[in-house]
Amino acid sequence: MEYERLIRQIQFIVEIDKLKHILRQTLLIDGSRRENDAEHSWHVAIMAVLLSEYSNFEELDVSQVVKLILVHDLVEIDAGDVYCYDQDANQDRVKQHEKDAAVRLFNILPEDQAEEFFSLWEEFEERVTPEARFAASLDRLQPLLHDYNTKGIMWGKNHVKSEQVMVRNKVIVDGSTILWEYAKEIIEGAIENGYLQS
Amino acid sequence: MEYERLIRQIQFIVEIDKLKHILRQTLLIDGSRRENDAEHSWHVAIMAVLLSEYSNFEELDVSQVVKLILVHDLVEIDAGDVYCYDQDANQDRVKQHEKDAAVRLFNILPEDQAEEFFSLWEEFEERVTPEARFAASLDRLQPLLHDYNTKGIMWGKNHVKSEQVMVRNKVIVDGSTILWEYAKEIIEGAIENGYLQS
Repeated sequence: MEYERLIRQIQFIVEIDKLKHILRQTLLIDGSRRENDAEHSWHVAIMAVLLSEYSNFEELDVSQVVKLILVHDLVEIDAGDVYCYDQDANQDRVKQHEKDAAVRLFNILPEDQAEEFFSLWEEFEERVTPEARFAASLDRLQPLLHDYNTKGIMWGKNHVKSEQVMVRNKVIVDGSTILWEYAKEIIEGAIENGYLQS
Repeated sequence: MEYERLIRQIQFIVEIDKLKHILRQTLLIDGSRRENDAEHSWHVAIMAVLLSEYSNFEELDVSQVVKLILVHDLVEIDAGDVYCYDQDANQDRVKQHEKDAAVRLFNILPEDQAEEFFSLWEEFEERVTPEARFAASLDRLQPLLHDYNTKGIMWGKNHVKSEQVMVRNKVIVDGSTILWEYAKEIIEGAIENGYLQS
C-alpha cells in the first residue's frame, strides 16, 4: 500500500512530540515541576470547551477555538517559550524565530494541511477573529490560575510585579469581559495574599 | 460580582491539572521519560485534526472526536492508568474505579456540564458512534508510534508479545481500515527490527 501522504502526516505527528519538552515558566498546581507546552495546550483546550459561554461574541465557533489552541504553541518547538513577563525579550527576533519554526514544521505536512496549520497559527497570533480573541483570553487565564494556586512562586522568582500582570493580562477583556473581571479578582487576591508584589 | 457557576468550572479546571501527573507506559519519542495523560490527550487531539480523512465514516464530526479525546482519560486522575497490555488487570474493578472517578470529578462542574462530560466519557467508552470509534483508533495508534520510535523499550520491559499488540490494536480497524493497515505495517516492522518479540 502507498502511504505518501500519510507518511508525511505521521512524520509531523512524531516531530511535534517535542512540544512535551518545551518548559514554561509556570508550575503545575501542586508546585512539583514546571509545566510543558503540550500539557498547557491540552488544559487550555478543555477550558475552551467549558468556558465558551463567557465569550464576548454571540457567534463563536468553539471547535475553531479548540483547534487554534491545540496548534498555537507548536512553533515553540524551535523558537522556545519566551516568558510572557520578559521585558527584555526582543519581540522582532522572537517573531522571526517563530515564523521560521512555522515554515519548517508545517511544511512537513502535505501542502493543504501545511496551509491549514499556517492559517490557524496566524489567526491565533493576529487576534482579530472572535475565536482567536477568545483563545487568547484562555491562554492568559490558565497560567494566572497556576500562578495564584502556587502562591506566585514563579512570579517571585522572575521578579514580576502586579502592574506587569495587570497590563499583560488585560487582553483577556477582548475575548471575555466576564473572565477579565474574574481575572482581576485573582490578581487582586494575589496581591492581598502577598503572592504578587506591587 | 457573583460567580457561583464560574467558580465551579474553575475548581474543575484546577482539579484536572492532576492529569499531568498520571504517567503512562509509553516513553516520549526521544526515550527520555514516560509520557503523561495530558500530553497524550493533546497529541491524540491533534491527530484527530490531521487524520480524519482516513476514518471509515462518510459523516464524521471531527470537533466531537476532539472533545472525546480531550476528556477520555480524565477518570484516570483517580483510577490511574492501567497498562493496555496488562492481562492481570481486573477489568470489572477498573471499570468501577473509573465510574467512581467520573462521578467525583464531573460533579465538580455545574449540572449541565457534568452531564455533558459524563456523556462524552460514556460515548468514548462505548465505542458505538463513528466519532468514538475513530477516537479509539487514534488512541491506539499514538502509543504504537511511540513504542516503534523508542524501539519497543517499554514492550520489552513489560514482556509484551507481538500477538498481544496485534490483538489489542485490531480495534483500530473499527474506526479506520487505512490506519489499521498502516498500524499492521508498524507492528510487522517492529517484529522485523527486533523491537517486539513474537
